[in-house]
Amino acid sequence: MNRSVIIVAGGSGSRMGGDVPKQFLPLAGRPILMHTIDAFHRFDNQMNIVLVLPSKQHDYWRRLCSEYSFDKIDYQLVDGGETRFHSTLNGLAKVPADGIVAVHDGVRPLVSQETLQRCFSAAEQCKAVVPAIPVNESVRQIEPDGGNRAVDRSCYRLVQTPQVFDAATLHQAFRQPYSPLFTDDASVVEHMGVKVSIVEGNFENIKITRPVDLVLAEAIIGSKERR
Amino acid sequence: MNRSVIIVAGGSGSRMGGDVPKQFLPLAGRPILMHTIDAFHRFDNQMNIVLVLPSKQHDYWRRLCSEYSFDKIDYQLVDGGETRFHSTLNGLAKVPADGIVAVHDGVRPLVSQETLQRCFSAAEQCKAVVPAIPVNESVRQIEPDGGNRAVDRSCYRLVQTPQVFDAATLHQAFRQPYSPLFTDDASVVEHMGVKVSIVEGNFENIKITRPVDLVLAEAIIGSKERR
Repeated sequence: MNRSVIIVAGGSGSRMGGDVPKQFLPLAGRPILMHTIDAFHRFDNQMNIVLVLPSKQHDYWRRLCSEYSFDKIDYQLVDGGETRFHSTLNGLAKVPADGIVAVHDGVRPLVSQETLQRCFSAAEQCKAVVPAIPVNESVRQIEPDGGNRAVDRSCYRLVQTPQVFDAATLHQAFRQPYSPLFTDDASVVEHMGVKVSIVEGNFENIKITRPVDLVLAEAIIGSKERR
Repeated sequence: MNRSVIIVAGGSGSRMGGDVPKQFLPLAGRPILMHTIDAFHRFDNQMNIVLVLPSKQHDYWRRLCSEYSFDKIDYQLVDGGETRFHSTLNGLAKVPADGIVAVHDGVRPLVSQETLQRCFSAAEQCKAVVPAIPVNESVRQIEPDGGNRAVDRSCYRLVQTPQVFDAATLHQAFRQPYSPLFTDDASVVEHMGVKVSIVEGNFENIKITRPVDLVLAEAIIGSKERR
Protein backbone atom coordinates (compact mmCIF):
# COMPACT_ATOMS: atom_id res chain seq x y z
CA MET A 1 0.00 0.00 0.00
CA ASN A 2 1.49 3.38 -0.88
CA ARG A 3 2.38 5.60 2.03
CA SER A 4 2.70 9.36 2.22
CA VAL A 5 3.53 11.78 4.97
CA ILE A 6 2.71 15.48 5.05
CA ILE A 7 5.19 17.17 7.36
CA VAL A 8 3.76 20.52 8.42
CA ALA A 9 6.22 23.13 9.60
CA GLY A 10 4.51 26.46 9.87
CA GLY A 11 6.11 27.95 12.95
CA SER A 12 7.38 31.50 13.02
CA GLY A 13 9.56 31.01 16.08
CA SER A 14 8.02 33.71 18.27
CA ARG A 15 7.45 31.38 21.23
CA MET A 16 11.10 30.34 21.16
CA GLY A 17 12.04 33.96 21.75
CA GLY A 18 14.17 34.14 18.62
CA ASP A 19 14.06 35.11 14.97
CA VAL A 20 14.76 31.68 13.55
CA PRO A 21 11.56 29.66 13.07
CA LYS A 22 11.69 26.78 15.53
CA GLN A 23 11.73 24.06 12.87
CA PHE A 24 15.14 25.35 11.74
CA LEU A 25 16.79 25.50 15.17
CA PRO A 26 19.75 23.19 15.58
CA LEU A 27 19.22 19.99 17.52
CA ALA A 28 22.19 17.66 18.02
CA GLY A 29 24.05 19.48 15.29
CA ARG A 30 21.44 20.05 12.59
CA PRO A 31 18.05 21.66 12.05
CA ILE A 32 15.11 20.00 13.80
CA LEU A 33 13.27 19.52 10.51
CA MET A 34 16.04 17.34 9.09
CA HIS A 35 15.67 14.93 12.02
CA THR A 36 11.93 14.79 11.38
CA ILE A 37 12.24 14.06 7.66
CA ASP A 38 14.91 11.44 8.42
CA ALA A 39 12.64 9.60 10.87
CA PHE A 40 10.05 8.92 8.15
CA HIS A 41 12.63 8.06 5.52
CA ARG A 42 14.28 5.58 7.89
CA PHE A 43 10.91 3.98 8.56
CA ASP A 44 10.14 3.53 4.87
CA ASN A 45 12.59 4.74 2.25
CA GLN A 46 9.81 4.56 -0.36
CA MET A 47 7.63 6.96 1.62
CA ASN A 48 6.18 9.85 -0.41
CA ILE A 49 7.30 12.84 1.69
CA VAL A 50 5.57 16.21 1.33
CA LEU A 51 7.08 19.10 3.26
CA VAL A 52 4.82 22.09 3.92
CA LEU A 53 6.69 25.30 4.69
CA PRO A 54 5.63 28.97 4.55
CA SER A 55 6.69 30.19 1.11
CA LYS A 56 8.86 32.95 2.57
CA GLN A 57 10.98 30.28 4.28
CA HIS A 58 11.70 28.18 1.19
CA ASP A 59 14.93 29.99 0.27
CA TYR A 60 16.24 29.81 3.80
CA TRP A 61 15.44 26.09 3.95
CA ARG A 62 17.23 25.44 0.64
CA ARG A 63 20.31 27.25 1.94
CA LEU A 64 20.21 25.09 5.10
CA CYS A 65 19.94 21.94 2.99
CA SER A 66 22.97 22.98 1.02
CA GLU A 67 24.91 23.95 4.14
CA TYR A 68 24.16 20.60 5.82
CA SER A 69 24.40 18.55 2.59
CA PHE A 70 20.84 17.39 3.20
CA ASP A 71 20.26 16.08 -0.31
CA LYS A 72 19.89 12.28 -0.06
CA ILE A 73 16.14 12.16 0.55
CA ASP A 74 13.52 12.96 -2.09
CA TYR A 75 10.57 15.05 -1.03
CA GLN A 76 8.16 17.61 -2.42
CA LEU A 77 8.14 21.13 -1.04
CA VAL A 78 4.82 23.02 -0.95
CA ASP A 79 3.62 26.33 0.46
CA GLY A 80 2.08 26.62 3.90
CA GLY A 81 -1.41 28.03 4.37
CA GLU A 82 -3.01 30.47 6.76
CA THR A 83 -3.87 27.83 9.37
CA ARG A 84 -2.85 24.27 10.06
CA PHE A 85 -5.95 23.13 8.16
CA HIS A 86 -4.91 25.06 5.07
CA SER A 87 -1.31 23.84 5.30
CA THR A 88 -2.43 20.21 5.44
CA LEU A 89 -4.79 20.90 2.54
CA ASN A 90 -1.90 22.23 0.43
CA GLY A 91 0.12 19.12 1.28
CA LEU A 92 -2.79 16.82 0.39
CA ALA A 93 -2.68 18.08 -3.19
CA LYS A 94 0.52 16.02 -3.56
CA VAL A 95 -0.93 12.85 -2.01
CA PRO A 96 -2.44 10.01 -4.12
CA ALA A 97 -6.15 9.34 -3.78
CA ASP A 98 -5.58 5.93 -2.22
CA GLY A 99 -3.16 4.36 0.25
CA ILE A 100 -2.24 5.68 3.67
CA VAL A 101 -1.29 9.23 4.57
CA ALA A 102 0.25 10.57 7.77
CA VAL A 103 0.23 14.19 8.89
CA HIS A 104 3.09 15.07 11.21
CA ASP A 105 4.32 18.15 13.07
CA GLY A 106 7.66 19.30 11.70
CA VAL A 107 8.77 20.08 15.25
CA ARG A 108 8.34 16.52 16.52
CA PRO A 109 11.72 15.11 15.52
CA LEU A 110 11.77 12.43 18.23
CA VAL A 111 8.92 10.24 17.02
CA SER A 112 10.14 6.67 17.49
CA GLN A 113 10.24 4.01 14.80
CA GLU A 114 7.97 1.93 17.08
CA THR A 115 5.37 4.71 17.17
CA LEU A 116 5.51 4.97 13.38
CA GLN A 117 5.09 1.21 13.11
CA ARG A 118 2.06 1.24 15.44
CA CYS A 119 0.42 4.13 13.60
CA PHE A 120 0.94 2.87 10.05
CA SER A 121 -0.03 -0.71 10.96
CA ALA A 122 -3.24 0.37 12.65
CA ALA A 123 -4.08 2.60 9.68
CA GLU A 124 -4.28 -0.49 7.49
CA GLN A 125 -7.38 -1.49 9.49
CA CYS A 126 -8.79 1.85 10.68
CA LYS A 127 -9.55 5.04 8.81
CA ALA A 128 -7.97 7.36 11.39
CA VAL A 129 -5.24 6.67 13.93
CA VAL A 130 -3.52 8.94 16.42
CA PRO A 131 -0.68 8.14 18.83
CA ALA A 132 -1.29 9.32 22.37
CA ILE A 133 0.16 9.05 25.85
CA PRO A 134 -1.47 8.94 29.28
CA VAL A 135 -1.55 12.02 31.48
CA ASN A 136 1.00 11.91 34.31
CA GLU A 137 -0.43 14.77 36.37
CA SER A 138 -3.71 15.34 38.13
CA VAL A 139 -6.14 17.07 35.78
CA ARG A 140 -8.63 19.85 36.51
CA GLN A 141 -11.32 21.03 34.18
CA ILE A 142 -12.13 24.75 34.02
CA GLU A 143 -15.89 25.29 34.18
CA PRO A 144 -17.93 27.93 32.38
CA ASP A 145 -18.34 29.92 35.64
CA GLY A 146 -14.54 30.12 36.03
CA GLY A 147 -14.46 27.48 38.76
CA ASN A 148 -12.77 24.15 38.28
CA ARG A 149 -13.08 20.54 39.34
CA ALA A 150 -10.86 17.49 39.52
CA VAL A 151 -11.48 15.02 36.70
CA ASP A 152 -10.25 11.44 36.34
CA ARG A 153 -6.96 11.70 34.47
CA SER A 154 -7.18 8.07 33.37
CA CYS A 155 -10.01 9.11 31.01
CA TYR A 156 -7.75 11.47 29.05
CA ARG A 157 -4.94 11.06 26.54
CA LEU A 158 -2.45 13.59 25.21
CA VAL A 159 -2.43 13.37 21.44
CA GLN A 160 0.75 13.44 19.38
CA THR A 161 1.47 13.04 15.70
CA PRO A 162 1.76 11.43 13.15
CA GLN A 163 -1.99 11.23 12.74
CA VAL A 164 -2.43 8.58 10.10
CA PHE A 165 -5.40 8.14 7.78
CA ASP A 166 -6.88 6.20 4.95
CA ALA A 167 -5.96 8.61 2.14
CA ALA A 168 -9.40 8.62 0.50
CA THR A 169 -10.98 9.47 3.87
CA LEU A 170 -8.58 12.34 4.53
CA HIS A 171 -9.11 13.77 1.03
CA GLN A 172 -12.86 13.66 1.59
CA ALA A 173 -12.59 15.21 5.07
CA PHE A 174 -10.57 18.14 3.81
CA ARG A 175 -13.28 19.00 1.31
CA GLN A 176 -15.35 20.18 4.29
CA PRO A 177 -15.34 23.95 4.83
CA TYR A 178 -12.82 25.10 7.41
CA SER A 179 -14.02 25.36 11.00
CA PRO A 180 -12.14 26.80 13.97
CA LEU A 181 -13.19 23.61 15.81
CA PHE A 182 -10.59 21.74 13.75
CA THR A 183 -7.82 21.67 16.32
CA ASP A 184 -5.86 18.89 14.67
CA ASP A 185 -6.17 16.70 11.60
CA ALA A 186 -8.02 13.92 13.41
CA SER A 187 -10.70 16.38 14.47
CA VAL A 188 -11.36 17.20 10.79
CA VAL A 189 -11.99 13.54 10.03
CA GLU A 190 -13.97 13.05 13.24
CA HIS A 191 -16.22 15.96 12.22
CA MET A 192 -17.29 13.82 9.27
CA GLY A 193 -18.40 11.05 11.66
CA VAL A 194 -15.32 8.81 11.32
CA LYS A 195 -14.10 7.07 14.48
CA VAL A 196 -10.55 7.88 15.57
CA SER A 197 -8.42 5.03 16.97
CA ILE A 198 -5.71 5.62 19.54
CA VAL A 199 -2.39 3.76 19.61
CA GLU A 200 0.48 4.17 22.04
CA GLY A 201 2.80 7.10 21.32
CA ASN A 202 6.24 7.60 22.82
CA PHE A 203 6.92 10.01 25.68
CA GLU A 204 9.98 11.43 23.90
CA ASN A 205 7.84 12.49 20.93
CA ILE A 206 7.53 16.05 22.22
CA LYS A 207 6.52 19.08 20.20
CA ILE A 208 9.35 21.59 20.33
CA THR A 209 7.69 24.93 20.92
CA ARG A 210 9.44 26.44 23.95
CA PRO A 211 13.14 26.78 24.82
CA VAL A 212 12.77 24.13 27.56
CA ASP A 213 11.59 21.64 24.92
CA LEU A 214 14.79 22.05 22.96
CA VAL A 215 16.79 21.43 26.13
CA LEU A 216 14.77 18.26 26.71
CA ALA A 217 15.18 17.09 23.12
CA GLU A 218 18.96 17.55 23.32
CA ALA A 219 19.01 15.61 26.58
CA ILE A 220 16.93 12.75 25.16
CA ILE A 221 19.19 12.42 22.13
CA GLY A 222 22.27 12.60 24.37
CA SER A 223 20.98 9.90 26.68
CA LYS A 224 20.15 7.63 23.71
CA GLU A 225 23.64 8.02 22.35
CA ARG A 226 25.14 7.08 25.71
CA ARG A 227 23.09 3.87 25.89
CA MET B 1 1.33 33.54 59.55
CA ASN B 2 3.07 30.26 60.30
CA ARG B 3 3.89 28.13 57.28
CA SER B 4 4.44 24.40 57.05
CA VAL B 5 5.20 22.04 54.23
CA ILE B 6 4.62 18.31 54.19
CA ILE B 7 7.01 16.78 51.68
CA VAL B 8 5.71 13.37 50.71
CA ALA B 9 8.25 10.91 49.32
CA GLY B 10 6.75 7.47 49.17
CA GLY B 11 8.19 6.07 45.98
CA SER B 12 9.68 2.62 45.78
CA GLY B 13 11.59 3.23 42.57
CA SER B 14 10.03 0.46 40.49
CA ARG B 15 9.08 2.74 37.59
CA MET B 16 12.63 4.04 37.36
CA GLY B 17 13.77 0.48 36.69
CA GLY B 18 16.17 0.43 39.63
CA ASP B 19 16.38 -0.54 43.28
CA VAL B 20 16.98 2.94 44.65
CA PRO B 21 13.71 4.75 45.38
CA LYS B 22 13.44 7.65 42.92
CA GLN B 23 13.51 10.35 45.60
CA PHE B 24 17.09 9.30 46.42
CA LEU B 25 18.45 9.25 42.88
CA PRO B 26 21.21 11.76 42.24
CA LEU B 27 20.33 14.93 40.37
CA ALA B 28 23.08 17.47 39.65
CA GLY B 29 25.28 15.75 42.21
CA ARG B 30 22.96 15.01 45.11
CA PRO B 31 19.72 13.17 45.91
CA ILE B 32 16.54 14.65 44.42
CA LEU B 33 14.94 14.99 47.85
CA MET B 34 17.66 17.34 49.06
CA HIS B 35 16.90 19.73 46.19
CA THR B 36 13.23 19.61 47.14
CA ILE B 37 13.79 20.36 50.83
CA ASP B 38 16.20 23.14 49.86
CA ALA B 39 13.63 24.84 47.62
CA PHE B 40 11.22 25.35 50.55
CA HIS B 41 13.95 26.35 52.96
CA ARG B 42 15.24 28.94 50.49
CA PHE B 43 11.73 30.33 50.09
CA ASP B 44 11.24 30.73 53.86
CA ASN B 45 13.96 29.68 56.26
CA GLN B 46 11.40 29.66 59.08
CA MET B 47 9.22 27.12 57.27
CA ASN B 48 8.15 24.13 59.39
CA ILE B 49 9.28 21.24 57.18
CA VAL B 50 7.82 17.76 57.66
CA LEU B 51 9.36 14.97 55.59
CA VAL B 52 7.25 11.85 55.11
CA LEU B 53 9.27 8.77 54.17
CA PRO B 54 8.46 5.03 54.36
CA SER B 55 9.88 3.87 57.70
CA LYS B 56 12.09 1.27 56.04
CA GLN B 57 13.89 4.08 54.16
CA HIS B 58 14.73 6.22 57.23
CA ASP B 59 18.11 4.62 57.87
CA TYR B 60 19.13 4.90 54.23
CA TRP B 61 18.08 8.56 54.17
CA ARG B 62 20.10 9.30 57.32
CA ARG B 63 23.15 7.70 55.75
CA LEU B 64 22.67 9.86 52.63
CA CYS B 65 22.37 12.99 54.79
CA SER B 66 25.61 12.14 56.51
CA GLU B 67 27.35 11.33 53.22
CA TYR B 68 26.22 14.63 51.63
CA SER B 69 26.60 16.68 54.85
CA PHE B 70 22.93 17.59 54.52
CA ASP B 71 22.55 18.87 58.09
CA LYS B 72 21.92 22.62 57.90
CA ILE B 73 18.13 22.48 57.59
CA ASP B 74 15.80 21.50 60.44
CA TYR B 75 12.91 19.23 59.61
CA GLN B 76 10.80 16.52 61.17
CA LEU B 77 10.90 13.02 59.77
CA VAL B 78 7.72 10.92 59.94
CA ASP B 79 6.64 7.53 58.62
CA GLY B 80 4.84 7.12 55.31
CA GLY B 81 1.41 5.49 55.11
CA GLU B 82 -0.23 2.97 52.85
CA THR B 83 -1.46 5.54 50.32
CA ARG B 84 -0.72 9.19 49.58
CA PHE B 85 -3.74 10.10 51.74
CA HIS B 86 -2.32 8.23 54.73
CA SER B 87 1.15 9.69 54.21
CA THR B 88 -0.21 13.23 54.19
CA LEU B 89 -2.28 12.39 57.27
CA ASN B 90 0.86 11.25 59.12
CA GLY B 91 2.60 14.48 58.16
CA LEU B 92 -0.39 16.58 59.28
CA ALA B 93 0.11 15.33 62.84
CA LYS B 94 3.18 17.60 62.96
CA VAL B 95 1.41 20.66 61.54
CA PRO B 96 -0.11 23.39 63.79
CA ALA B 97 -3.89 23.80 63.77
CA ASP B 98 -3.66 27.25 62.18
CA GLY B 99 -1.56 28.99 59.54
CA ILE B 100 -0.84 27.74 56.05
CA VAL B 101 0.26 24.27 55.05
CA ALA B 102 1.63 23.05 51.73
CA VAL B 103 1.75 19.43 50.58
CA HIS B 104 4.47 18.75 48.02
CA ASP B 105 5.74 15.77 46.05
CA GLY B 106 9.24 14.84 47.14
CA VAL B 107 10.11 14.14 43.50
CA ARG B 108 9.35 17.68 42.29
CA PRO B 109 12.70 19.31 43.02
CA LEU B 110 12.34 21.99 40.32
CA VAL B 111 9.46 23.97 41.77
CA SER B 112 10.40 27.61 41.24
CA GLN B 113 10.55 30.27 43.93
CA GLU B 114 7.97 32.20 41.87
CA THR B 115 5.56 29.26 41.97
CA LEU B 116 6.03 29.00 45.74
CA GLN B 117 5.37 32.73 46.06
CA ARG B 118 2.18 32.51 43.99
CA CYS B 119 0.90 29.49 45.95
CA PHE B 120 1.61 30.78 49.44
CA SER B 121 0.34 34.30 48.64
CA ALA B 122 -2.92 33.01 47.22
CA ALA B 123 -3.37 30.73 50.22
CA GLU B 124 -3.60 33.78 52.45
CA GLN B 125 -6.90 34.57 50.70
CA CYS B 126 -8.19 31.16 49.61
CA LYS B 127 -8.57 27.92 51.53
CA ALA B 128 -7.07 25.71 48.81
CA VAL B 129 -4.61 26.60 46.05
CA VAL B 130 -2.94 24.44 43.41
CA PRO B 131 -0.36 25.43 40.79
CA ALA B 132 -1.18 24.22 37.30
CA ILE B 133 -0.05 24.59 33.71
CA PRO B 134 -1.96 24.60 30.41
CA VAL B 135 -2.00 21.50 28.21
CA ASN B 136 0.28 21.76 25.18
CA GLU B 137 -1.09 18.83 23.23
CA SER B 138 -4.47 18.01 21.74
CA VAL B 139 -6.58 16.13 24.29
CA ARG B 140 -8.91 13.19 23.76
CA GLN B 141 -11.34 11.84 26.29
CA ILE B 142 -11.87 8.09 26.52
CA GLU B 143 -15.57 7.29 26.66
CA PRO B 144 -17.29 4.54 28.62
CA ASP B 145 -17.83 2.50 25.42
CA GLY B 146 -14.08 2.54 24.73
CA GLY B 147 -14.37 5.16 22.00
CA ASN B 148 -12.90 8.62 22.33
CA ARG B 149 -13.54 12.19 21.29
CA ALA B 150 -11.55 15.39 20.95
CA VAL B 151 -12.11 17.83 23.81
CA ASP B 152 -11.09 21.48 24.08
CA ARG B 153 -7.65 21.46 25.68
CA SER B 154 -8.02 25.07 26.81
CA CYS B 155 -10.56 23.84 29.37
CA TYR B 156 -8.00 21.64 31.13
CA ARG B 157 -5.03 22.25 33.41
CA LEU B 158 -2.28 19.87 34.53
CA VAL B 159 -1.98 20.11 38.29
CA GLN B 160 1.37 20.25 40.09
CA THR B 161 2.36 20.69 43.70
CA PRO B 162 2.74 22.29 46.23
CA GLN B 163 -0.97 22.24 46.95
CA VAL B 164 -1.36 24.87 49.64
CA PHE B 165 -4.16 25.09 52.19
CA ASP B 166 -5.53 26.92 55.15
CA ALA B 167 -4.21 24.56 57.86
CA ALA B 168 -7.50 24.31 59.77
CA THR B 169 -9.28 23.38 56.53
CA LEU B 170 -6.76 20.68 55.66
CA HIS B 171 -6.92 19.21 59.17
CA GLN B 172 -10.69 19.07 58.91
CA ALA B 173 -10.61 17.56 55.42
CA PHE B 174 -8.30 14.76 56.49
CA ARG B 175 -10.74 13.70 59.20
CA GLN B 176 -12.97 12.40 56.40
CA PRO B 177 -12.76 8.64 55.85
CA TYR B 178 -10.39 7.66 53.05
CA SER B 179 -11.86 7.33 49.58
CA PRO B 180 -10.13 6.01 46.46
CA LEU B 181 -11.54 9.14 44.74
CA PHE B 182 -8.91 11.19 46.58
CA THR B 183 -6.35 11.45 43.79
CA ASP B 184 -4.45 14.35 45.30
CA ASP B 185 -4.67 16.52 48.40
CA ALA B 186 -6.84 19.17 46.76
CA SER B 187 -9.43 16.53 45.90
CA VAL B 188 -9.73 15.67 49.61
CA VAL B 189 -10.54 19.28 50.44
CA GLU B 190 -12.80 19.63 47.42
CA HIS B 191 -14.77 16.57 48.59
CA MET B 192 -15.73 18.64 51.65
CA GLY B 193 -17.20 21.34 49.38
CA VAL B 194 -14.27 23.77 49.46
CA LYS B 195 -13.43 25.59 46.23
CA VAL B 196 -9.93 25.03 44.85
CA SER B 197 -8.12 28.00 43.31
CA ILE B 198 -5.59 27.61 40.51
CA VAL B 199 -2.42 29.69 40.18
CA GLU B 200 0.25 29.48 37.53
CA GLY B 201 2.81 26.72 38.03
CA ASN B 202 6.15 26.43 36.23
CA PHE B 203 6.74 24.08 33.32
CA GLU B 204 10.03 22.87 34.83
CA ASN B 205 8.22 21.66 37.96
CA ILE B 206 8.05 18.10 36.69
CA LYS B 207 7.41 15.00 38.75
CA ILE B 208 10.38 12.70 38.36
CA THR B 209 8.90 9.25 37.89
CA ARG B 210 10.50 7.86 34.74
CA PRO B 211 14.13 7.77 33.55
CA VAL B 212 13.35 10.39 30.88
CA ASP B 213 12.22 12.80 33.62
CA LEU B 214 15.60 12.59 35.31
CA VAL B 215 17.29 13.36 32.00
CA LEU B 216 15.03 16.38 31.60
CA ALA B 217 15.66 17.57 35.15
CA GLU B 218 19.43 17.37 34.65
CA ALA B 219 19.09 19.31 31.41
CA ILE B 220 16.95 22.03 33.00
CA ILE B 221 19.42 22.50 35.84
CA GLY B 222 22.31 22.51 33.38
CA SER B 223 20.67 25.13 31.18
CA LYS B 224 19.92 27.36 34.20
CA GLU B 225 23.55 27.18 35.29
CA ARG B 226 24.69 28.19 31.81
CA ARG B 227 22.42 31.25 31.81
